[in-house]
Amino acid sequence: MHSIQQLQEIINKAIADTKYTQKPTELYEPISYLMELGGKRMRPVLVLLSTELFGGDVMKALDAAIGIELFHNFTLMHDDIMDKAPLRRGKPTVHAKWSESAAILSGDVMFVEAYKMMIKVDDSILREVLDIFSDTASGVCQGQQADMNFENHDEVTVDEYLLMIKQKTAVLLAGSMEIGALIGGAEKKQAKLLHEFGENLGLAFQLQDDILDVYGDPEKFGKLVGGDILANKKTFLLIKAKELAKNHKSTELAKWTNGTSHDATQKIAAITSIYDSLEVRKLAEAQMEQFVTKAITALNQTGIENDTKVILQSFAESLLIREQ
Amino acid sequence: MHSIQQLQEIINKAIADTKYTQKPTELYEPISYLMELGGKRMRPVLVLLSTELFGGDVMKALDAAIGIELFHNFTLMHDDIMDKAPLRRGKPTVHAKWSESAAILSGDVMFVEAYKMMIKVDDSILREVLDIFSDTASGVCQGQQADMNFENHDEVTVDEYLLMIKQKTAVLLAGSMEIGALIGGAEKKQAKLLHEFGENLGLAFQLQDDILDVYGDPEKFGKLVGGDILANKKTFLLIKAKELAKNHKSTELAKWTNGTSHDATQKIAAITSIYDSLEVRKLAEAQMEQFVTKAITALNQTGIENDTKVILQSFAESLLIREQ
Repeated sequence: MHSIQQLQEIINKAIADTKYTQKPTELYEPISYLMELGGKRMRPVLVLLSTELFGGDVMKALDAAIGIELFHNFTLMHDDIMDKAPLRRGKPTVHAKWSESAAILSGDVMFVEAYKMMIKVDDSILREVLDIFSDTASGVCQGQQADMNFENHDEVTVDEYLLMIKQKTAVLLAGSMEIGALIGGAEKKQAKLLHEFGENLGLAFQLQDDILDVYGDPEKFGKLVGGDILANKKTFLLIKAKELAKNHKSTELAKWTNGTSHDATQKIAAITSIYDSLEVRKLAEAQMEQFVTKAITALNQTGIENDTKVILQSFAESLLIREQ
Repeated sequence: MHSIQQLQEIINKAIADTKYTQKPTELYEPISYLMELGGKRMRPVLVLLSTELFGGDVMKALDAAIGIELFHNFTLMHDDIMDKAPLRRGKPTVHAKWSESAAILSGDVMFVEAYKMMIKVDDSILREVLDIFSDTASGVCQGQQADMNFENHDEVTVDEYLLMIKQKTAVLLAGSMEIGALIGGAEKKQAKLLHEFGENLGLAFQLQDDILDVYGDPEKFGKLVGGDILANKKTFLLIKAKELAKNHKSTELAKWTNGTSHDATQKIAAITSIYDSLEVRKLAEAQMEQFVTKAITALNQTGIENDTKVILQSFAESLLIREQ
C-alpha cells in the first residue's frame, strides 16, 4: 500500500519522464510545460488509490492516471483562454506564453494524447473505460459552459449551482475513481460505488473551497481570502445569501455585488457580515457534511476492508474538520 | 453497391436525424448548426465506400462515418477561430455567431462526440480503430500548426509542404478509408493498403486544389480564382516557382509576393505569367500523377475486384482529367 505522497511521487516521476518531442514544437512544448507546472495531482492519485483499493497494481493504472491528468490539464489550457487568465500557478498561461491559436490547438492534441493513454487499458475493460472517460469529458465541458453562463445570469438557484460544480469538478474525480477501480479488478457495481464516492467527495471539496474563500486562514488557504467576493462569483454562500436575504439586507447585498468601485476590504467585510447574519456558512457546512456522508456510505458498500480504504475514508473525513 | 450520391444521401439523412439537444445549448447547438451546413461529405463517403469494398454492410459503418464527419467539423470549428474566418459555406462561423469561447468549448465536446461514435465499432476492431483515429487526429492538428507556421516562414521547401498537406488533409482521408475497411472485414494488411490509397488520393486532391486556384474555370471552381495568389499562400506552385526563379524573375516574384498594395488583377496576371514561364503547373501535375498512380497501385494490391473498386478507381482517375 502506498501513501498519498508516494503516489504523487510516482505520478510526478512518470510526468517528468514523458517527453512530448513531436513536431511542430508549438503543439507539443505547451503540453510538457503545463504538465510540469506541478500541483497536487489529486485526480491521478485517485486513479491509483482506487486501483489499489481492489488489490490492483498501481503501475498497471499509471497510463490511465497520466491520461486523466492530461485531460485535466487540457481543460485548464482551454479554460485559461476563455477566462483570459494571464497566470496559472504563478507562471504565464499557454496562450499568454505562446499564442491563443497555439493554446487551442495544443489543447486539442493534448486531448488526443489523453485518449491515447486511456486506450492502453486491457481489452476486457477497454470499452467500459472509454465510455466512462468520454462521458466524463462531456460533463466537464458542460460544467465549464454552465459556469460561464452563470456570470451573465442574475438568478442562479442552489440546484443549478450544485449541478454545475458536479459537472465541472465532481464528475472528473468520480470518473478517475471508477476507471481506477476497473483497472484494479473491481466489479462494475463496485466501480459505480467508487464513482459515487468520488462525485460526492468532489462536491464536498468545491463547497469547502467556497467556504475557505471567505473563512479560510489566509496563511493556509494559499489564495486571496475574499477573492470570490471581490469577483462577485456566484458561490454556494452568495446564492444562498441572496435566497435568504430580505428587505434592507437584500438591498445591502445587491448594492455590494452590483457596484464595481467598492473598496476591497470594505466589500469583503460587509458581505462576510451579511453571510454571518444569515448563517450561510452553517448551511454550506451542513450540505458538505451530507456529501461526505454519502461518499463514505458508498465506500463502505464496496465491501472492501484494507489500508487503502482507510486512506480514502480519512481523505473524505478531513473535509469535516473546520478551518477557523 | 451504392453510388456516391446514394452514400451522400445516407449520410445526410443520418446527420439530419441526429439531434444534439443536451444542455447547455451553447455547447450543442453549434454542433447541429455546423454539421447541417452541408458539404460533399467526402470523408464519411470514403468510410462507407471502403466498407463496401470488402463486402461489408454500409449501415454497420454509419456511426464511424458520422464520427469522422464530426471530427472533421470539429477541426473546422477550431480552425475558423484561428483563421479569424467570418464565414463558412456562406454562413457565419460558430465563433462569429455565438462566441469564441463557445466555439472552443463546443469544438471540444464535438471531439468527444466523435470519439463516442468511433467507440461503437465491434470489440474485435475497437483498439485498432481507436489507434488509427487517434493517430489521424494528432496528424491533422500537426498539419494545421505547420500550415500556420508557414505563414511566418520565408523559406518553405516542397518536402515541408508535402508533409504539411499530408497531415492536414491526406491523413484524414487515409484514416477514414482504413477504418471503413476494417469495419468491412478487411485484413489489417488490406486496410493499410486502403490507407495508402487514401493518403495519396488526399495529396493529389490538395495539389489539384492548388492548380485549380490559378488555372481553374471560374464558373466550375466555386472559389475566387487567384485567391491563393492574392493571399500569398505558399502553395506547391509558389514554392516551386520560388525555387526555380532566377535573377530578375526571382526579384519580380518577390516584388509581387512581398508587397501588399498591388492591384489584384495585375498581381494575379503577373504571378500566373511567372508560373507559366517556369512551367510549375506541369511540375504540379506530374507530382499529382505520381500520387494518383501510387493510390491506384495500392488499391489494386488489395486483390479485391468489384463495383466499388471501380468507383474508387475512377474517383482517383478523375483527378487526372485536366480542367482548362
